[in-house]
Formats: sequence, C-alpha cells, structure tokens
Amino acid sequence: MTPEEFRRHGKEVIDWIADYYQKIESLPVVSRAKPGEIRASLPPNPPQEGEPFDAMLRDVQNLILPGITHWQSPNFFAYFPSNNSFPSILGDLLSSGLGVQGMLWATSPACTELETHVLDWLVEMLGLPEAFSSRSTGGGVLQDTASSSSLCALLAARERATNYASNERGCDGRLVAYTSSQAHSSIEKAAKIAGLGRANLRLIETDAKFAMRPDALAAAIERDRKDGLVPCFVSATVGTTSSNAIDPVREIAKICREHGIWLHVDAAMSGTAALCPEFRWIHDGVDLTDSYCFNPHKWMFTNFDCDCFYVADRAALIKTLSVLPEYLRNKATESGAVFDYRDWHIPLGRRFRALKLWFVIRHYGVNGLRHHVKRHVELAQRFATWVREDPDFELAAPVPLNLVCFRHRAGDQVNQAIMDRLNQSGDLYLTHTRLNDRLTLRMSIGQSQTELRHVERAWNRIKEEAKKLAGSEPRQGANLART
Amino acid sequence: MTPEEFRRHGKEVIDWIADYYQKIESLPVVSRAKPGEIRASLPPNPPQEGEPFDAMLRDVQNLILPGITHWQSPNFFAYFPSNNSFPSILGDLLSSGLGVQGMLWATSPACTELETHVLDWLVEMLGLPEAFSSRSTGGGVLQDTASSSSLCALLAARERATNYASNERGCDGRLVAYTSSQAHSSIEKAAKIAGLGRANLRLIETDAKFAMRPDALAAAIERDRKDGLVPCFVSATVGTTSSNAIDPVREIAKICREHGIWLHVDAAMSGTAALCPEFRWIHDGVDLTDSYCFNPHKWMFTNFDCDCFYVADRAALIKTLSVLPEYLRNKATESGAVFDYRDWHIPLGRRFRALKLWFVIRHYGVNGLRHHVKRHVELAQRFATWVREDPDFELAAPVPLNLVCFRHRAGDQVNQAIMDRLNQSGDLYLTHTRLNDRLTLRMSIGQSQTELRHVERAWNRIKEEAKKLAGSEPRQGANLART
Repeated sequence: MTPEEFRRHGKEVIDWIADYYQKIESLPVVSRAKPGEIRASLPPNPPQEGEPFDAMLRDVQNLILPGITHWQSPNFFAYFPSNNSFPSILGDLLSSGLGVQGMLWATSPACTELETHVLDWLVEMLGLPEAFSSRSTGGGVLQDTASSSSLCALLAARERATNYASNERGCDGRLVAYTSSQAHSSIEKAAKIAGLGRANLRLIETDAKFAMRPDALAAAIERDRKDGLVPCFVSATVGTTSSNAIDPVREIAKICREHGIWLHVDAAMSGTAALCPEFRWIHDGVDLTDSYCFNPHKWMFTNFDCDCFYVADRAALIKTLSVLPEYLRNKATESGAVFDYRDWHIPLGRRFRALKLWFVIRHYGVNGLRHHVKRHVELAQRFATWVREDPDFELAAPVPLNLVCFRHRAGDQVNQAIMDRLNQSGDLYLTHTRLNDRLTLRMSIGQSQTELRHVERAWNRIKEEAKKLAGSEPRQGANLART
Repeated sequence: MTPEEFRRHGKEVIDWIADYYQKIESLPVVSRAKPGEIRASLPPNPPQEGEPFDAMLRDVQNLILPGITHWQSPNFFAYFPSNNSFPSILGDLLSSGLGVQGMLWATSPACTELETHVLDWLVEMLGLPEAFSSRSTGGGVLQDTASSSSLCALLAARERATNYASNERGCDGRLVAYTSSQAHSSIEKAAKIAGLGRANLRLIETDAKFAMRPDALAAAIERDRKDGLVPCFVSATVGTTSSNAIDPVREIAKICREHGIWLHVDAAMSGTAALCPEFRWIHDGVDLTDSYCFNPHKWMFTNFDCDCFYVADRAALIKTLSVLPEYLRNKATESGAVFDYRDWHIPLGRRFRALKLWFVIRHYGVNGLRHHVKRHVELAQRFATWVREDPDFELAAPVPLNLVCFRHRAGDQVNQAIMDRLNQSGDLYLTHTRLNDRLTLRMSIGQSQTELRHVERAWNRIKEEAKKLAGSEPRQGANLART
C-alpha cells in the first residue's frame, strides 16, 4: 500500500468509524452471534495472494460487526465503563503510525518523557500523594491493565519483604498476602503467578457495605505472624467491580505501616472520580500507601489499553523487575538520568501509549473531564432514586459513585429473567453479580455518550420486563434495601 | 469532538502519517534529545480548559517528533525489526474505534473468533504442528510480548510439574528451569516473577554458533534430579536476540520428553522466517514442544503489540490461569463451547488485536509476506558477503537469516567509536552485543521500507567511519571470523 493509497483508505476508515458512532444506537447492544458463527463465515485458509483493502473493510462491516457487542453504545451498562473518545482514537492512531518501541529511554526519548510527564499531571489531577510523582522517590508508568499493575505491586512487595531473596532463590511458602473477599479476581491470579499460592492469599471479610473490615485484617495478620508466616502485601480496593465498595484505605494503611507491609490500592474502576474534589474522599489514606493504580481506559475516555500504575519507591520496583542484557546497554541508562520503563513492568516492548492520554487530557481539560464524570455520577444517583422509590425493586448496596446494584424483590429467577430478556432485546446491556448470595443486577453508568434519556429508557425497559414477568410468577422476598 | 470534527481531524492525522513515511528518510534516525529535554518543552501543569486539536497535532510535530527515534526508517538497523505497514495501522485504528473488550467470548464474539481463526491460519502459514491449532488439543492466543508468553509458558510448566499445587500452596524452591546463556533476558525475568528464583534458572552453555548444547542441558537435568530438584521447564530459542542463534530444538525436545519437562520455544525474532519453506528448518522439532511464540510485531509488518503464543495442551494453560468471579459468569462460558481468552494470559481486559493481523495477512497474502521476508534475508546475506570480503572486518557469528553480527578487526574501542559516530550522524542506527567477550556490531535488516540502496549506504558509511578512525589508532587483532 503506497502512502497515497493509505491516504485514501485511511480516510475511508475514519469515515467508517464516524459513521459507526453516528448509527451505534440503532445496533443491538449485545451481539446475537452463536458460538462458531463468526468463524464459519471466514475462509478456512489464508489467502495466497493479496486482497484489495475494500474487501477487508466490507468484511468488517458484514462479517465482523454482527459479532461485536457494542461497548461504546450509550446503552451499554454492563461490567464497567470502557469509554472511548475521538481524541483518544487519534492519539492511538499516531502511536500506531509512529511505530516506536519505548522499552528504553534511549529507544525514543519522547515516548518515555511524555509518559512520565502526563503521569505527573495525573498526580495533580487526582490529588494523589507527591510521593507518586517522578519529582519524588516514586513515579508512574502505563501498564496494559490493573491485573498487571497489581501483579507488579505484589512482586515488589514480595522482594521488599524478603530482601530480594525471592528473586534470587524463589519463594519459600511463608509469604502471605491479603485482600478483601470482594476484591478483583486479578489479585488471586497475581498470588498464583508470583508463587505465593492461592492458599496464602487471605480473603478478608467485608462489612455491610462490602468494604474490607480493618479489624479482620489486623486479626488475620496477627494470626499469620504467630504461625511464623510473613505478611508481605495488602491490596485494598477503591471501587470493587462487584458493587463499587470503597475499602477504608486510611485504617488499612495504619495496620500495614505498623507491620511493614506493602499496601497497594486497586482503584481501576473508580479512581477517575477523584478528578472531582467532591469525590476525592475515596482516596483518603492513599498518602500512606506504597502503590496505586487506576484505569483511564475504564472511565477516563481513553481507549484500551491504558492503566496508570504509581509507586512511592520506584527503586524497589526497578530492583524487582530489572534484568540488563548487553544488547540493551546504552549511555543514557548508565548515566542514571533517565527512566527505562521496561524495568517497571513485565513486557520488554512497549508502544507510545502516552499520546492518547495526553490528547484526552488536553482535549477535555481538567474541567471538561470533571464535568463528564460528575454527569455520570448524577445519572447513577438519579437511577438509584428511581429504584429506591419503586416498591418492586430494592438497592442491594450503597451507591457511592456510578454503579447501581439493585434487584427486583421477587428473587433470583425473576432478576435473571429480566436481565436475559433485556440483553436479548438488544435495547441495552446489563450484567449481574451476587451480593449476600442473591443475584443482583448492576447498572454501570459511564459510557461517553450516555445521557439522561438512555438511563430513563433503561429504567423503563427494566420495569416493563419486570411487569411482563409479574403475571407469571408470585412476588417473593421482603424489603432488604440497605441504603 | 463531534463525529464531523473527528472526520476532519482524523483525515489530518492520516495525512500526517502518510507525510511522515514520505519524509522519514530525511530525519535523523536516532533522536538527538538530551535527558529531560522533551519534558522541559511541555507545560508543567495540565490544562484546566480543553484545547483545540490543531494545537495538539502541532505539538506532536514540533515537540514530540524531535524526541522520536525512527524505528520505521529504512535506515534503522538496531535491536530487531519492528516493522509496520499501512494495513496494520488501519486494522489497529478500527480496533481503537470499535473499543471492544474481548476478555470473554461473550463480551464480543468476533474479537475472540477472529483471533482463533487467524492464529489457526498462522499454524498453516508457518508449518507449525497441528497440535497448536484450535481444532486440536491446543490453540493460539495474542499476547502483548514474548516476555509475557514465556512467563505464561513457565507458569503452565510449573503447574503441570506440581500437579497444580504451586498455584494452591506456592512454590517450594525445588523447581528448576533451563535456557541457554544466550537466551533473552525475559526468561530470567519470568523465573523471578514465577517464584522459581534466578538461582533456579540454569543458563546452559552454548556451542561455537551460540546455540544451546543439548549434552550440557541433559547433564544439568541429571545433576538437578540427583540433587532432589524438580526440572519443570526448558526454553529454547529460535533466533537469539544477541546473534540470531538457532537452538537445536529437536535434540532438546527429545531430552525434555524423556524427563517429562515442558519445552517452550521462543521464536519471537525469527519465527516469521518459517513463512518461507526454505527457512522452515528453523522449526525442526517444534512438533515435539509444548508451547511456542513468535512476534508479528517484529518481522511480520504488524504494529506493536502482537505476539502469537501457542500451546499444545490448552487445558493446562487455562487451568493455570483461570479464576472465575461471579460477575464474569455467563452462559457461553458455562457451555464450554467457546474460548475465553482472559484465561490464556495475565491481563483480564484485551483489545481487538486480531484485526490488524487479519488485515496484514489479507493485504500481503502468503506469497507477499514470503517475498518481503526473503528479500530481507537476501539483503542480510549480501551484507555478510561484503563483511567477509573486507580485510578490515570479520563476521562474529553465523548469519542464518537477517541479522549480521560483525566487527572491525581493530578491537572494541574502534567498534564502539564506529557505532557512536554512525548513530550520532543520524544516517543510520546500529546497536551492539558482546560475543566471546568482544564488542560486536549488529546489523538487523527487516524494516518494511529497507531496500538494497539503504544497506549499501550503511556499509559505505561503516567503512567510511572505520577509515577515518584508522588514522588515529593502530590496527589490532587477528582474523577470527568463524563463518
């Protein structure tokens, strides 16, 4: 493809994307593809000769699009926000175009320096502690996901607790980690990967708001110490995936400080809220922690992948992950004057991800980002009010930000049926969790184009399906709403 | 930004990228930025209000571009190929635009199914064993890098060797892994991350061609077994980063089979060569291995990130990495009829990376890809001939494919000076390694636009700098060329 052909086809793709966003509301949110259906439409063997670009774009339209669940639809209320924006897409396009490798400062200085710079901006924007800025002992780095960040935090914790002996001689089975029973599955995955083992991850019980109980954490640590084990890592959650519970970070941090335990904060889903001063309470105590992550690719209008990971002591992280072969040696690295981000995460290679984040921050400005985040929270709070005022429904958890956990009072079967019917209808997409062992619907509000009318329509459709089901099933259960 | 503004700015970015590739040869290959220089040009604080897109694109041109080392320049001969192509950029743009999460089949069926499909195509294209195809017991998945793939392979090996007890109770310090002393640093990183420890990774000595010695491997395994240790993992390399050495996979595989050890093949840099039947010998013995990876983002015209990871027994990988919280449960997963790729790697979230790979394969066709790979190998072989015929230079290692390791006979200082002068000139970019404890220059040929004239010019510039230096320094060293 010549540069001139690229100009032509590139503009077709730009138009295709613009068209996609203009018609996205007319598409069923959840793909109706059956397992194997998309593959069956594709040729079994690769082409021997090249094909024209038009054929590829046509196949995206005709074969791929029916297999897409539209995460960017304003009627997408499932899982978590994964919002996108045009400036982000264009920043990412420039990154793809430049095609640089940022594994070392020396392999493209701008890739490293813009990343450090924008991550320092975000320290200020979210009111994070100065220890996380590169001007201090710490610093930030972009990772693919919070799963990877939490793993890196656990690894640094493991090494700090063993004076870097685990890196050298391996784990010895005495290290213990802690998180709440409501924490993200990635913490369990990290404990397995890092060689601690699932049995050495304590899932601390939670309070009525599904937040970690500091007293239970303290008791578990004491018990393990008495048993001769080595508590090394606690992961607190600011906004659990299941119900948006906010762990009491300050109280947890005091316990960790007392015992010299590395405290990580997983704010993947909710950290973005701290852009707004009125929601900054979610970060109370983060100034006492060792590491922190949040995902602009969830709620900050930045397309996947873009997780921001901060540490207060970058030396500990780098010492944990650094391996320097001869073919990567260079003068800038040896001078000590630069960051080589390959030592801050698992992969060696890395693309220029900071561009899209820079574009998003500059396009919206701090005030623009606050405006949108505030709007999402307001929409969720309004939805929560409707649930609260409806005799057939109840809230299943507090609603601190933009996730509403709720259910029909008629029990699991009805809630499952409501969800299945809505999702099959194509009108919206909702997912579920279990809280207090009851099936609970989750209304997650945070897509870029979601407005009041989408949330109103969702609530009307939920009530409508519930009414249709009401005829067929008797009402069960009492008012158990907690908030 | 409205869709109409996106159409306008998007087309500006497309033109910017086309312009970039049209002028790329006029730019100094290596950035001349000093540490801190790029950051110093950026405002210290984030903008409170949004800025126009034009300002952002202007800053990319004026502030970022001087900090870029041009990996896509045809005069880039450093590290390893990281070649890109216009179809790949456009596939990636569609992925950014669609903004889907492919963590589960259910969250966008096409994202999973196209990936499985294209990875099956590649089994056929590279002549990989049928066990790696999804139609068999195995399958392929896209990862960010070979570092992550090798880590996942090691984790599955660790679990298979301990009957999944390490996942449950942690590592016990008896597990041992093996790779050659020339293997990529990511294997050492993986051994540390997985809790085996650096001391439990044996760096097996290599032969005169820098390939792993099977007899030394067998002896090390025997020794460890006698000491009551548990050999669990061998990583063989098809194309080492340092010198492009090809480990004898078949002989290594026989030893691994005998001892029930998981054998992984890291073909990150060179696997692409197997597109051409005449180079498929590099994969001899891969049919006896447990896992394999290669990077289309290195030498197959696909922009970062895109590593293909294959396993012969997907159940072992999935059992190692799967954690299923309630909020991810769904009917498709429970049916067992689909792949949920989140269980095939470390991150949970994943973008639609298969699109760009699909576009690349369709744009070039198998024959087109072969043509370009063959051309790169021919250029490298021609360069090797020039080195061989020049009395002042010598080859430092065999040249099986597209990497030429060579040096001036006058010793380390002269080679260092040649490299520094060339890189500072902006004319080309070369990096180094050490082989037999001598500084060695590496000429890696594989960028999409590199043609004979670029390679000729590079060789002329190398000789020119060497001649300039010859006056100032006496000639040292004898003819040590081995090939």
